[in-house]
Amino acid sequence: MTDPTTPPLILDVLRERRSPSVFDPAHELSDDQLASLLEAARWAPSNGNAQPWAFVVARRGDAAHGVLVGALSRGNSGWLPPASVVLVTLARTTPEHKPALADYARYDLGQAVAHLCVQAASMGLGVHQFGGFDHDALAAAYEVPDEWSVVSGVAVGRPWPVDERTGVDPSTAERELRERRRKPLSELAFGTRFGEPLPVRPTH
Amino acid sequence: MTDPTTPPLILDVLRERRSPSVFDPAHELSDDQLASLLEAARWAPSNGNAQPWAFVVARRGDAAHGVLVGALSRGNSGWLPPASVVLVTLARTTPEHKPALADYARYDLGQAVAHLCVQAASMGLGVHQFGGFDHDALAAAYEVPDEWSVVSGVAVGRPWPVDERTGVDPSTAERELRERRRKPLSELAFGTRFGEPLPVRPTH
Repeated sequence: MTDPTTPPLILDVLRERRSPSVFDPAHELSDDQLASLLEAARWAPSNGNAQPWAFVVARRGDAAHGVLVGALSRGNSGWLPPASVVLVTLARTTPEHKPALADYARYDLGQAVAHLCVQAASMGLGVHQFGGFDHDALAAAYEVPDEWSVVSGVAVGRPWPVDERTGVDPSTAERELRERRRKPLSELAFGTRFGEPLPVRPTH
Repeated sequence: MTDPTTPPLILDVLRERRSPSVFDPAHELSDDQLASLLEAARWAPSNGNAQPWAFVVARRGDAAHGVLVGALSRGNSGWLPPASVVLVTLARTTPEHKPALADYARYDLGQAVAHLCVQAASMGLGVHQFGGFDHDALAAAYEVPDEWSVVSGVAVGRPWPVDERTGVDPSTAERELRERRRKPLSELAFGTRFGEPLPVRPTH
């Protein structure tokens, strides 16, 4: 902020995270790796410690995965099936005790998924989240109770190095080359009121 | 998962994160530190890269902070004011382009906040999120547009070591000693369908 030409320092695991679209179709996630991902999600914070999150784990080739692949939007049906595992995420949108917590179910699920992504990145795994699939079809097939909402899919796998790839659809490969873009800080951080820039303060 | 007596390995920054309730009332967050926190949030993933998040930054002692402190619930008015900075979080719940993204505004905000918390933990800062305050009062005072919802507060500061503390309310100090608890993995990760345990697979 003091020197606008130098981006602020952040953890490599945050700066270098990206959403790969080409996964190694032969890679399998071990049970220990899966356990670490779920453990990272499990320890996320949540409003009132309600922990309003759950995951249906679909491994490439199993029954849950078959259901998922059949429910994908056209845009996701090409790149996604080779990923090793997909976690279908659920938020408890009808809270058990305090109705006021409903507004935090998706927020807290997002935190748990972010923890999972950070953990995955630290293990050299790639994660690509997606929302384009038939949510009602999965809720029915996975027998999700009414108190829970199907929210997103989280594809996890080994990003496939370019020099090892065979048979990858060019449009899928192209997705990966897109530059990562974000809004400037001035559009997301405000001082005093919405839209006001952060005040410049003397450097400590 | 293979050995239920050993918890799965996760990053220290995730395992050791907790929400402190006693902050050093003399600590000030530097602009560079604040920039790193916001930069971590900025690079979070989001559905369609919509980045539906924003933050009003309230520093202890400034006008935005005064407004916030006046809007706190009784449960938060004791522990919170000494924190160095509070970020009031906003989700764009009326999306700019695709209405279908509304369901992801809070989810993606949660991801951005989780990134911020991980970054803070890596810098030795404590973060304590809270929802108990008059959201409408802050929306009015901060002139938040109708397309955005006030969602949470994120208090950031230096956790105050026990041997340096003076004048801390005993009930606030007690909050910190609570053991961190989470549901067991069997209540949040399912195979095949909701409620089914994850299948046990041979170790690789």
